Amino acid sequence: MTFSELDIISRISAMVPGQGSEVIKGLGDDCAVIRMDNDRLWLATADTLVENVHFDYSWHPPGLLGRKTASVNLSDIAGMGGRPSFALLSLALPVSVQEEWLTLFMQGFLAVLHEHDALLVGGDTVKSNHDAVFSVTVLGQIAADRVLYRSGAKPGDLVWVSGELGVAAAGLELCRQGRPHPEDEAWQKLVLAHLDPTPEVELGLLLAESGMVSAMMDTSDGLATDLAHLCEQSGIGSEIIAAKLPMPVAMAKVAACLGGSALNWALSGGEDYRLLFTSSPDNSATLPSLVKERMGREIYCIGTIVDGSGVVLIDGNQRRDITYKGYDHFAK
Amino acid sequence: MTFSELDIISRISAMVPGQGSEVIKGLGDDCAVIRMDNDRLWLATADTLVENVHFDYSWHPPGLLGRKTASVNLSDIAGMGGRPSFALLSLALPVSVQEEWLTLFMQGFLAVLHEHDALLVGGDTVKSNHDAVFSVTVLGQIAADRVLYRSGAKPGDLVWVSGELGVAAAGLELCRQGRPHPEDEAWQKLVLAHLDPTPEVELGLLLAESGMVSAMMDTSDGLATDLAHLCEQSGIGSEIIAAKLPMPVAMAKVAACLGGSALNWALSGGEDYRLLFTSSPDNSATLPSLVKERMGREIYCIGTIVDGSGVVLIDGNQRRDITYKGYDHFAK
Repeated sequence: MTFSELDIISRISAMVPGQGSEVIKGLGDDCAVIRMDNDRLWLATADTLVENVHFDYSWHPPGLLGRKTASVNLSDIAGMGGRPSFALLSLALPVSVQEEWLTLFMQGFLAVLHEHDALLVGGDTVKSNHDAVFSVTVLGQIAADRVLYRSGAKPGDLVWVSGELGVAAAGLELCRQGRPHPEDEAWQKLVLAHLDPTPEVELGLLLAESGMVSAMMDTSDGLATDLAHLCEQSGIGSEIIAAKLPMPVAMAKVAACLGGSALNWALSGGEDYRLLFTSSPDNSATLPSLVKERMGREIYCIGTIVDGSGVVLIDGNQRRDITYKGYDHFAK
Repeated sequence: MTFSELDIISRISAMVPGQGSEVIKGLGDDCAVIRMDNDRLWLATADTLVENVHFDYSWHPPGLLGRKTASVNLSDIAGMGGRPSFALLSLALPVSVQEEWLTLFMQGFLAVLHEHDALLVGGDTVKSNHDAVFSVTVLGQIAADRVLYRSGAKPGDLVWVSGELGVAAAGLELCRQGRPHPEDEAWQKLVLAHLDPTPEVELGLLLAESGMVSAMMDTSDGLATDLAHLCEQSGIGSEIIAAKLPMPVAMAKVAACLGGSALNWALSGGEDYRLLFTSSPDNSATLPSLVKERMGREIYCIGTIVDGSGVVLIDGNQRRDITYKGYDHFAK
């Protein structure tokens, strides 16, 4: 019997005993939340990247792979509005690993930590007989009255994303089909979104401090899955508008060339590492204004939180249930 | 070019920037040490187990493998005298993983956490195309004036270990040679030392609280390597007496049967997960008395800290430099 990643996680969750007095949130959000003192919380997250599952050496330069290994973990801290502090890195490497590869990988990994004022404090290095496996744990910090969970969304709230969706999936498909370095700058941007995603740490901090956000997480598995998690944790449903999903113009062109679907990439591609968040409609003007003023960038309203459960896509006059129809490594 | 695990770790260490104000100890000890508040510290450690490198399904029952995955991480917290609090578990599993296997593995893992009042708070579950890889991070706590580093040993101190050495290596060899379930109870004890090592959390707490210990760590790579680390961090050398190394009687018999060397197992076998610690000779009677009184068990004095560097084995009238001649996955 094989079963899905969600099955495994829910089975494990069911076995884990109740939370202790210091554990404010255990399994089920971007990070575990642990009490530090009366005012501050620790955030703890772990993510693992496996060769030929999450990355492919043939198109992933070691420096960018090191960067991505750090970024996908920092993104989970960003997803709760926290500030990353410390990282532990466990490397399972084949004995054939080259010194130059390792140096470039570590330079990339450490550069991303440095960009976000986080420090590597520990880890492990072991031999692997086959694939390389990188496991990272990141600890972050946040004020107790600022932390944003997946569980805070309320009916009527608007659903926002912090950037274009499906971009990393389009870039991955370009790499898979052997077109990683096209001359077109717009295509190159898609490829870089896959190779070197940027964790939204600064935006996460701003949104948490704004007091205007009711629920937040990062998008790592595709909108259809990520938003389904948020809805499930909040005990509500959502409706998103296909025409409102932010996608770069180049994506449609790439999709036509490669035989993919831009909308499908946006809904189920995964690995965009944008922020997905909800906010009262009262903030529909002030929230994007704040982000524009402080960071000079856009955020995108893509739908509404409603009573019920799951994720409905409204595409023209069609309504489609897309709940959890995202990317799932175990179901592939 | 291939290079050793120590090479990789030293290369990475050289690239890591200076410690931050909250980081009391980064790379180079059993755990990273992070300031919690004026009185308390966090300990953070990460360890990874790789299929067919650190374990073999053919002789490792899933429940005991789950136990060991937790125990080897708790052992690092014990090595600094701390109390484990929280764990994050990242599993990279082939899609063929069986539900029953996963249930038994998790029951074992969670049982060990429960035995030591630690909670699973997070992690990740991903697909692996080949080997299973288990990465664990454990966070522990300790009073700031109690933490024991590898770096505190002084010339004249006595060197102690908390239990028999080489036992896990002998048990591993029994498993490798297809004799995991002999009728002899003494042999079975060796096999269990490999399959289900016990982290010395309670003893570590007692030793840290005693105020009598100058340096401490756990033994995971074999005495010759572990003690070399302690000596290097403390800037001193050590002499250990072969005749004083605690080894069960059965080990010599097993070594004769299997064509191994009991002394070699004790020096370089690894995975015993006992405590290795140093203490002023003033405590040579009070320290073992305290342990006997409070825990009803022995500790073993195996040598002395001296000026200089490295580890010398005194075997009869022979002196042999055994520094770092322990087990090394990358050198194999």
